Amino acid sequence: MKGPAFLIDIDGVLYVGDQAVPGAAEAIRLLEESGQPYRFVSNSTRKSRASIAARLENLGFSVPASRIFTPPVAAIAAMKQDGRTRAAFLTTGDVDRDFADAGIYPTDCNPHWVVIGDAGDNFTYRSLTLAMRRILDGAGILALEYDRYWMGADGLMLSAGPFVAALEYATGKKATVVGKPSPEFFDLAVRDMGVERADTLMIGDDIVTDIGGAQAAGMRGVLVRTGKYRADTVASSGIRPFRIIGSLAEIGELL
Amino acid sequence: MKGPAFLIDIDGVLYVGDQAVPGAAEAIRLLEESGQPYRFVSNSTRKSRASIAARLENLGFSVPASRIFTPPVAAIAAMKQDGRTRAAFLTTGDVDRDFADAGIYPTDCNPHWVVIGDAGDNFTYRSLTLAMRRILDGAGILALEYDRYWMGADGLMLSAGPFVAALEYATGKKATVVGKPSPEFFDLAVRDMGVERADTLMIGDDIVTDIGGAQAAGMRGVLVRTGKYRADTVASSGIRPFRIIGSLAEIGELL
Repeated sequence: MKGPAFLIDIDGVLYVGDQAVPGAAEAIRLLEESGQPYRFVSNSTRKSRASIAARLENLGFSVPASRIFTPPVAAIAAMKQDGRTRAAFLTTGDVDRDFADAGIYPTDCNPHWVVIGDAGDNFTYRSLTLAMRRILDGAGILALEYDRYWMGADGLMLSAGPFVAALEYATGKKATVVGKPSPEFFDLAVRDMGVERADTLMIGDDIVTDIGGAQAAGMRGVLVRTGKYRADTVASSGIRPFRIIGSLAEIGELL
Repeated sequence: MKGPAFLIDIDGVLYVGDQAVPGAAEAIRLLEESGQPYRFVSNSTRKSRASIAARLENLGFSVPASRIFTPPVAAIAAMKQDGRTRAAFLTTGDVDRDFADAGIYPTDCNPHWVVIGDAGDNFTYRSLTLAMRRILDGAGILALEYDRYWMGADGLMLSAGPFVAALEYATGKKATVVGKPSPEFFDLAVRDMGVERADTLMIGDDIVTDIGGAQAAGMRGVLVRTGKYRADTVASSGIRPFRIIGSLAEIGELL
């Protein structure tokens, strides 16, 4: 019988900060040579797939953009399935490039959706007030993620979640949330490999989103001790990973 | 027996936009001559009491600042009662003047409270991220109001509430909310008159905050048909005011 298929988180698994995880690039080469299918799943909402692939290339990883699955990819799939694709954007970086590649261009005129990512300094009183007006006029809230915060260079930074919560409170509407740990998001990558969830291992550093999310979706979760891994967070999570490994460098044990 | 005491909302009752309500200034003079006690209660969080008094003077109302009760006044009372008064501010305008008059100066160093008003353009990714860090470090959230939005010149504008909701979600802490319709807020003004709630009429244009809030606190609510008054909002509110009058100009009927 064939071995498992792999979903692999990026930030904290392939690299931490500006440094590749030692042995991770070799692990990906080993995986490629094994012939086992694999895809990358990230909750990044500040970069397009092409930008993520370019960054990985700089760090020594050879990964085609088409193997990288992010919340914008999931949002595009959700919008196309829904049949309504007019969207205003509250995002930063070049994530709009993914949408443009799918034929979805930003519009401020009667959008069906207000798409919200981790927009950083693009979250202003003005941009949020305009988003509220569009939502009250009928647009849905499409949240690329619902995280509370992330660790920046000098402390915690607000993520998209609090701003989504602000607009939910202002408008009385609930957001549609894509990205990990949504099963639909995992399925995009799983279906792209032509396998089943039950045959898939999810490798990540977030005990809740990666491991808990994967296992709730019927996959097996493999936790790495790199990135945001903390032993006490794992202990208090109530989540038991299928396996815990030191880093992606030990992927040989899973093949 | 003496007639009732009066609490009077400001925006929408004394003036609408930049115009005094016709007959309202005469009504206040009539009230003053009657000898009945009265105070003003506003949920404004962008102006100090002194600024509100100056604005009213320009519109033809002679009102001492000490008779104006606003959420900053309630916040100061709450902080002094709590005994912890170190505060960082996420506000705009000159509301900090009220706090300074009470000996409370803004500090970014280990504040007990992050005080949040309708800060307008002072709500930025940076200011909200810094507020989150202070709250995670132990500061309480002191919300001057929890409204969703207000009507600006060209459409609805976000109020403080959505940003309070954002910080509650980011930190997992609940805010302490002062201002109308908190009974403690009404009591500050009622006690200042030396009367009881049961002897007090609250005159306002907001069926929920002014009338519902007052009647839940054991006062009688008098709704005016000026400002944000809408017949359908009143009908759907499930709240029955003690009286409805055309405007404050009809105050003679209540004396």
